[in-house]
Amino acid sequence: MQGTDLSLILGGAASGKSGLAEKAVLASGRQPVYLATARAGDDEMQEKIDRHRARRDSRWMTIEEPLEAAQVIESQAGGRAVLLECLTFWLFNQLEAGRSVSQEQARLTNALQSARCDIVAVSNETGLGIVPPGEFSRRFGTLQGELNQRVAGLAGNVALVVAGLPMMLKGRLPG
Amino acid sequence: MQGTDLSLILGGAASGKSGLAEKAVLASGRQPVYLATARAGDDEMQEKIDRHRARRDSRWMTIEEPLEAAQVIESQAGGRAVLLECLTFWLFNQLEAGRSVSQEQARLTNALQSARCDIVAVSNETGLGIVPPGEFSRRFGTLQGELNQRVAGLAGNVALVVAGLPMMLKGRLPG
Amino acid sequence: MQGTDLSLILGGAASGKSGLAEKAVLASGRQPVYLATARAGDDEMQEKIDRHRARRDSRWMTIEEPLEAAQVIESQAGGRAVLLECLTFWLFNQLEAGRSVSQEQARLTNALQSARCDIVAVSNETGLGIVPPGEFSRRFGTLQGELNQRVAGLAGNVALVVAGLPMMLKGRLPG
Repeated sequence: MQGTDLSLILGGAASGKSGLAEKAVLASGRQPVYLATARAGDDEMQEKIDRHRARRDSRWMTIEEPLEAAQVIESQAGGRAVLLECLTFWLFNQLEAGRSVSQEQARLTNALQSARCDIVAVSNETGLGIVPPGEFSRRFGTLQGELNQRVAGLAGNVALVVAGLPMMLKGRLPG
Repeated sequence: MQGTDLSLILGGAASGKSGLAEKAVLASGRQPVYLATARAGDDEMQEKIDRHRARRDSRWMTIEEPLEAAQVIESQAGGRAVLLECLTFWLFNQLEAGRSVSQEQARLTNALQSARCDIVAVSNETGLGIVPPGEFSRRFGTLQGELNQRVAGLAGNVALVVAGLPMMLKGRLPG
Repeated sequence: MQGTDLSLILGGAASGKSGLAEKAVLASGRQPVYLATARAGDDEMQEKIDRHRARRDSRWMTIEEPLEAAQVIESQAGGRAVLLECLTFWLFNQLEAGRSVSQEQARLTNALQSARCDIVAVSNETGLGIVPPGEFSRRFGTLQGELNQRVAGLAGNVALVVAGLPMMLKGRLPG
């Protein structure tokens, strides 16, 4: 990791993964940066964004960027810790924008590898249920699984969060 | 826990979580009480209830209560170990009855915290797959995840059961 | 286990379970046999089969058998390590062929118990999401969960793979 630290926090919906990720970033002692990839497409999403925002205090710098996470990460100085929330929305946004996922994934993982800042990336684990019918669900599940594998391979620390509690797959949570 | 013991056993459908929970209760050496929250709504459900019932021997006292688990727990004396089977049906029943989930969840967690008996609660982990389309699925998944987080926070012991084998997230199984 | 070794590798779609299973078989130092249960029913499936095949080098012997995994395992000599890929397709194929799953499961587990070869079985964990509507999904999830429990009970080593990383539920991966 060349002196910087990449962590991946996996979990399901409403698993408590975001709360754990925020704690890990704050515990790092670096300047916390919140890189939000979600788009407020509807009321439900807007409410979730507002809820997460209300939880973050004035220490946080927030950057909203649905597509260009790679670029944002490249521009961050050392001494910062970026919470990338989350890879699942990032992936969804790339698909929605009609971009090449393999190309964007390569750009993102390059940025993660050459980053000067610490990074805590949050992502959904979506592979452990029965796949609902529909080609998009199946394709999204495959792409999400491949992205998680790729980032987990690069990360020094990987946790799976269940009911708010982390199981370490590799390393340990920063802090 | 003020001398009593709260355990949470999470797992998927057909994961073996109920069998492990029954063993944990029997191993505690206390009077086993089976608090069943399932309603026999159809043949499939009735069959499942019958299968679980056939597995329990005469040591067990059975209480069937789809909605008022909080009240049942409050009324249990010390020296008993209650198997609360399960939080997922409890949640579903509250929604079906049109009750306020946040209010009922507060009542239940209060009862869990002030209980004089030991408790082993069983709940489904439902967050690790792709969410099927439909607002109810999404809402139920969120409520289930929040309930699991809340109870896991209170419990001294939390296990995730996969293929009949427990992974401990916290503490250890009673017995 | 009578001197032979049975391992079960569980994981979701695109979790990296197959790659880990291949490594485990090769690390065993025995003659690797790939027992493929998938049927090339459509282009998507054919592509997946081709991708897995391209990853295996000339050391591997490949046997394609959608239904009679029990028979294939019984016929394998000691000194071989069989990668059974996977129990999920095997189960699906039994259902599609209208066979009795309980009977076929008994045949398969008998074969696993009396095998002279080492075996690494791959299977999907499908129980940790919200069950999609539809009777087949629910039934398949239950049968898959029961099969995984049964094989995990017999296996000396059981891993759950998430994002390419194994969590050991029992024993350790061969190699």
